[in-house]
Amino acid sequence: MYSQILNHISRDISLTASEKEEFTGILSEKNILKKEFLIQPGDKVDSEYYVVKGCLKAFYRDQTGEDHIIQFAIEDWWMSDFEAFFKDTPAALYVEAIEDSILLKLDKTALEMLYQRIPKFERFFRLKITNAFVALRTRILSSLQKTGKERYLEFCQTYPKIEKRVPNYHIANYLGLKPESLSRIRRELQ
Amino acid sequence: MYSQILNHISRDISLTASEKEEFTGILSEKNILKKEFLIQPGDKVDSEYYVVKGCLKAFYRDQTGEDHIIQFAIEDWWMSDFEAFFKDTPAALYVEAIEDSILLKLDKTALEMLYQRIPKFERFFRLKITNAFVALRTRILSSLQKTGKERYLEFCQTYPKIEKRVPNYHIANYLGLKPESLSRIRRELQ
Repeated sequence: MYSQILNHISRDISLTASEKEEFTGILSEKNILKKEFLIQPGDKVDSEYYVVKGCLKAFYRDQTGEDHIIQFAIEDWWMSDFEAFFKDTPAALYVEAIEDSILLKLDKTALEMLYQRIPKFERFFRLKITNAFVALRTRILSSLQKTGKERYLEFCQTYPKIEKRVPNYHIANYLGLKPESLSRIRRELQ
Repeated sequence: MYSQILNHISRDISLTASEKEEFTGILSEKNILKKEFLIQPGDKVDSEYYVVKGCLKAFYRDQTGEDHIIQFAIEDWWMSDFEAFFKDTPAALYVEAIEDSILLKLDKTALEMLYQRIPKFERFFRLKITNAFVALRTRILSSLQKTGKERYLEFCQTYPKIEKRVPNYHIANYLGLKPESLSRIRRELQ
């Protein structure tokens, strides 16, 4: 059950056997079926989730009822409404399973105590949040400087596994393209 | 010279006298005049900068020559082309002084060594990057859900000091508004 997340963490920091035990002791398993919501607007968000298996999307629904996908997550990724999680504000996003998913839930309070006891985790989560920040900056710059085709190619290169698993209209939404524009781009590239 | 940055850091972590000395030992002062560039596209970005005094903007110039302001920084903020800094890629942004500015320069290699010797700094910079990530997410969600007037009011509330110091057309650019739209909004609010 825990070998995957321990392997994921060991890419950035080394843990002793007892540190591994302490870490896995604060995780709990959470299963969620396709089309179920992990988080809905207004929820209190005390946890972040590591994806053991499955696929999820985080999206914002605007006042006209249109959805805007903010993030995908597959195996080895972390998911939450991070703005709500870090700022202690009510959730603004939906987080929904695109496939049946198995998650590991990490609570904020337990994480804060973990930082005190095993400061190496400060490094691990610093690196994770740095990657998330950089990915967000890259996405903003890409939306300013790149064509739809370039953004799609960048997405395929950066997230090859997601491109294969997520419906095309989700990818179009994430890239800010109309589904028919993405279809045309894909035909042109074939 | 260093009391301001030490005070800034002490809001998040406690340092001993010798740790303070070690930290300030890896900083170097950098002065930059109004309208000068700290970073230009293509530069190697080995450093991030703490603002002791002054005001800067980071912006992307698109292929049509139009500028898009990504970030402002005033006293107590950190500035760089963070994407280039973290990913070791050439700079994509300009960072330009809006006022004569005094900065403290922190090199990436020295920072990595500091993390090894004083792991508390992992926590400090984890908190800083988390704030930056959350601010970016907030900005993206605001662009999806809020009117120009709401975004301007949010900006004034979040960054009251910047609103007072930065020319209006810069704020309009940052908010994705035309200068005349921002002028209208400001008139309506008076």
